[in-house]
Amino acid sequence: MDKLTVKLGARSYPILIGPGLLADDAVLAGQVGARDVLLVSNEVVAPLWAPRVRAALGRCRVVECILPDGEAHKGLAAFSQVIDALAAARMNRDCVVLALGGGVVGDVAGFAAACWQRGVDFVQLPTTLLAQVDSAVGGKTGVNHPSGKNLIGAFHQPRAVVADTDTLATLPQRQLRAGLAEVIKCGLLRDTGLFDWLEKNVLAVLDRDPQALTFAIRSACECKAAIVAADEREHGERALLNLGHTFAHAIETATGHGEWLHGEAVAMGLELAAQLAVRLGWLDAAEAARLRALLVLAGLPVDPPAIDAGRALELMGMDKKVRAGRIRLVLPRRIGLATCTDDYPPAMLRTLLQERFSARHR
Amino acid sequence: MDKLTVKLGARSYPILIGPGLLADDAVLAGQVGARDVLLVSNEVVAPLWAPRVRAALGRCRVVECILPDGEAHKGLAAFSQVIDALAAARMNRDCVVLALGGGVVGDVAGFAAACWQRGVDFVQLPTTLLAQVDSAVGGKTGVNHPSGKNLIGAFHQPRAVVADTDTLATLPQRQLRAGLAEVIKCGLLRDTGLFDWLEKNVLAVLDRDPQALTFAIRSACECKAAIVAADEREHGERALLNLGHTFAHAIETATGHGEWLHGEAVAMGLELAAQLAVRLGWLDAAEAARLRALLVLAGLPVDPPAIDAGRALELMGMDKKVRAGRIRLVLPRRIGLATCTDDYPPAMLRTLLQERFSARHR
Repeated sequence: MDKLTVKLGARSYPILIGPGLLADDAVLAGQVGARDVLLVSNEVVAPLWAPRVRAALGRCRVVECILPDGEAHKGLAAFSQVIDALAAARMNRDCVVLALGGGVVGDVAGFAAACWQRGVDFVQLPTTLLAQVDSAVGGKTGVNHPSGKNLIGAFHQPRAVVADTDTLATLPQRQLRAGLAEVIKCGLLRDTGLFDWLEKNVLAVLDRDPQALTFAIRSACECKAAIVAADEREHGERALLNLGHTFAHAIETATGHGEWLHGEAVAMGLELAAQLAVRLGWLDAAEAARLRALLVLAGLPVDPPAIDAGRALELMGMDKKVRAGRIRLVLPRRIGLATCTDDYPPAMLRTLLQERFSARHR
Repeated sequence: MDKLTVKLGARSYPILIGPGLLADDAVLAGQVGARDVLLVSNEVVAPLWAPRVRAALGRCRVVECILPDGEAHKGLAAFSQVIDALAAARMNRDCVVLALGGGVVGDVAGFAAACWQRGVDFVQLPTTLLAQVDSAVGGKTGVNHPSGKNLIGAFHQPRAVVADTDTLATLPQRQLRAGLAEVIKCGLLRDTGLFDWLEKNVLAVLDRDPQALTFAIRSACECKAAIVAADEREHGERALLNLGHTFAHAIETATGHGEWLHGEAVAMGLELAAQLAVRLGWLDAAEAARLRALLVLAGLPVDPPAIDAGRALELMGMDKKVRAGRIRLVLPRRIGLATCTDDYPPAMLRTLLQERFSARHR
């Protein structure tokens, strides 16, 4: 079992990574104790893994709340469903919310835990690669609004993240690829060694080689933990983690949440960010080509969906990073380095979007 | 203009108290600057005071969101209405939410500000005595759930509280009395001088004598600011502010939110807490009699509504302060001192409720 810590003073917490963790009574009981538990999961994950979690929590009263599956259901209705379950079970401030599933389950359950009685404990039990490398770590919780992704939410750190790599065995290959997009992002953002490693080992990860998976997850968590520890509430450096995400959120909203997986949209966003950086003269074209090749090797999309460029730009303007009407973007300077900026000609962004998106309409 | 500060480090903020503050451009503009503003109010308060606020914010883009009036509408639907207004107006992280109204408007608007893009600024413009002396100060925001009051919410401190005593001129007398209940609570809780003063001046406050009003508001805000500064997130001392509130929340829920005003239920809760403390031998019967006399003088209820004692007890068990199945209560030791405890015989609470509540069924 690998272990690392997100260092946030009194709110520091461990990330545990390895096989068999959900079946290990000592691991789960160590994080939860004998308290009342609301186990939040979805209709796909619960049948596979909830019995194991229940068995490991024999000393607790465990009540289940099963959400519908998919990003399309990540809204206030799902939040309300978790809240209603907490109320029906009469959970008090001492309870623990367990989020067993992917990013949607973690974000919704975490937001409900943040708001129930103004905040109760929660523990992330991510079962997708995307959640294990990204969404379960860092305390961002929330739900989508029809006008944009994650517009409603809270910063609420989990008490622990338990990433059981066994759960990835049942993950569809498409979702494994989507999770890889965030690992690639971490390499592009601040870890040249990880990027180099991915160029050589991406197929081993996709073949679910246990050592390769564990290394990828650990590397991504180390990247995220370091940035979150330095800037928990995104006053500065944390915005770097949004590399590719402003494009991605626009794509996800325009195509209807759920059509593109989040990781797929992020891959596309990384590609567009790199292209804009090349046009600005900030990124070497050869490095952008390396990124594109890695995304293709990982089986991730590098061509935009058939949506209108103007609509994409409008949706990017809804992004949380917008300041004084300017769309702030995270752009790569080289592999292993990126910066957050609004110092680019808006026309250049518009042209890029028109060229790349309109190509799909021809 | 009186001014005091809630001392919370980087999140410290001023409370401004006095007549004419909403008409004073310098006061409002000083807190808001030239940013985008969502002005949240309700259908009763907005026609009276929103034009004045708009006029004082001439440099800002001001969008209004008008909620239905009353505690019955303090739920997730109202929260969602504010969120939808923020989205429709495309408000970004730099915006400011202004809460113009009583406790319901402040709690709902504050909770929406806490969650919109994971937290934007908000400023409280309380227009009821209850909000000016209590709910606008301290950063507790949230909405009710059908199973209990304020079960969904966040700690989110305002950037400022601007309490314009002119707004109390249009406040119905019943609401003025209800606000006084929280002032009386502050006296009972930790300010013997305030309690003594109220015994002499409660009628002057009810006659809306400007100096008496300002003294009462300032004293209550000082009490609350000191406790919040010592314990922002209610890990300990802050729970003392709930003196009377566990009883009050049960009464409000059982009678249907809105039937009893919050302050009326608090008055009743203070009386019940004092009676339980007398039975426990913790409070002198003469001091309980002084409290009852003051509540009667203020025109506040000291007899419970016609609800079932068992139902009241069940609802008290839903309270956020419940720990390990025990109902924790704040009980007075003497006028000016109270403690939070679950060290009392549960049967004594049950008997008290049965005697006091069943009297109304005879």
